[in-house]
Parts: sequence; C-alpha cells; structure tokens
Amino acid sequence: MSKTGSVEERDLVNKLWDAGFAAMRAPASGGATKRPLPDVLAGNSKLYLAIEVKSTKQDHIYIDNEKISNLIEFSEIFGATPYVGAKFIRKPWRFIKLEDLHVTRSNNFRVNTDLAFSKGLDFEEIIGGTKQTRLI
Amino acid sequence: MSKTGSVEERDLVNKLWDAGFAAMRAPASGGATKRPLPDVLAGNSKLYLAIEVKSTKQDHIYIDNEKISNLIEFSEIFGATPYVGAKFIRKPWRFIKLEDLHVTRSNNFRVNTDLAFSKGLDFEEIIGGTKQTRLI
Repeated sequence: MSKTGSVEERDLVNKLWDAGFAAMRAPASGGATKRPLPDVLAGNSKLYLAIEVKSTKQDHIYIDNEKISNLIEFSEIFGATPYVGAKFIRKPWRFIKLEDLHVTRSNNFRVNTDLAFSKGLDFEEIIGGTKQTRLI
Repeated sequence: MSKTGSVEERDLVNKLWDAGFAAMRAPASGGATKRPLPDVLAGNSKLYLAIEVKSTKQDHIYIDNEKISNLIEFSEIFGATPYVGAKFIRKPWRFIKLEDLHVTRSNNFRVNTDLAFSKGLDFEEIIGGTKQTRLI
C-alpha cells in the first residue's frame, strides 16, 4: 500500500464517520491473510459500502482484475455495495460502480477523469444510497 | 495489541470465512485513528457481527469500560450485533452479549469461565443468529 493511498483512505474514512457511518480501513497486512478485503468498509445500519481506493496525480487510474474480483467476492458475501473510490489530485472524490469501469485489452480496469466525472458518483450520492437519476 | 490476541483474531476471522461470512480485522493502527473499532467485523448479507476479542491463559478476562463503550458506539452506527469473543486457552470460543458481562467495582467488565460457559454463546449460535433457548 502506498503512503499516498493511506492518506487518501484515512481521508475517506473520516468523511464517512462525519457523514454518520462507522468505517474501517483494512489492515495493512490484509494481503498476507489472502483474504479479498476492500480498502475501506463502512455501514450506517442501512447501507454498507465496500470501497477499493485509488489515488493518483495523473488523469487516470488502473485497477488489477484481481482487485476487482476480490471486491466483488467480498461485497457479495458481506452484503455491501462495491465501488472504486477514485481520488484525482485536487479534485473531489468520485465513486465508480464496477459495471462502469473501462475494461482494458489486458482485461484489467481503467478509469480516467472523464469517466469518473461522467458515470461516477460523488460522495453524497454513495452515502445517500440514491443516484442523481432518481432525482429527475 | 498482544501477539496472542492477533493469533486468536486470525483464528476467529478464518472460522468466520469458513462459515460463509466475510470478515476483517481492524488495522493494528486502529487506536491511532481514535475511532471506536471492534477487533473483528463480519457479515454474511443478513447478519453483521462486531467482536471485541480477548484471550487468556487464566480463568477470567477483564475488559475496559472504554472498549465496551466503543464497541457499543461502533455497533449501533454500523448496524452490527456486538459481542465479547472470549478465548480461554484449550477451550472453545465463547461469545458474551454485552448485557451479560459482569460489571466490576471499578466499572469495568469481567468474564470468567463460568459466566462464559453459562450465559455465553458458542460459535454456531452467533453465526446462526439463534440462541440455544430458541431450540427448546
């Protein structure tokens, strides 16, 4: 886990607590246990969120196929809604549903800022359990 | 966190995965974030468990008042059933509901083996969401 990743994860965990969720980061040694753990897990008694966090100073992020498979497995068993939480430097958090990720030729996943700010959701949307489209 | 505690926590996490739950340990640096995190958090889409783990080679465990306050706070916000998971050496896991903990004179909590094996629940009981009394 990169140091930058940790900072962003802590920021997200703090935002979730401030928004009335109880939130926990996965242990840094999570990989050692070979369990498919999300970076951040949160709940507010109604809504459960499992989030794979990626931060970057560039205009795109890559996510390994295995990370997404793990996120799906964990979320299905636990009972949580999975998201990729994308933090592009100097931009607000965006949360991308797994079906909206761009699949690369090598069968991994890619999110650029255009995708993140078109199909992605903002923080209020994922904690409210609602989508912008429901307000129309 | 003691090394013994970690071993027992990993054992419990493994048992939960084997029983069809997705389970996660709190990060070792959890205390540093000042968040009230349980040692183990697990869910199976129906049932969510927040567990404070205590293991001992003696015949009793003590739990600080603050740990229990934190466990209650986390569980109420997250939406999980809180337990103290007690592992007495060479005995099976027992899970004690918070209202069944013995309150000490100093307003902390104590569980001895008698209490753990009378009022406490076994692993099957907490994952089934049922109590022995319901089978009678």
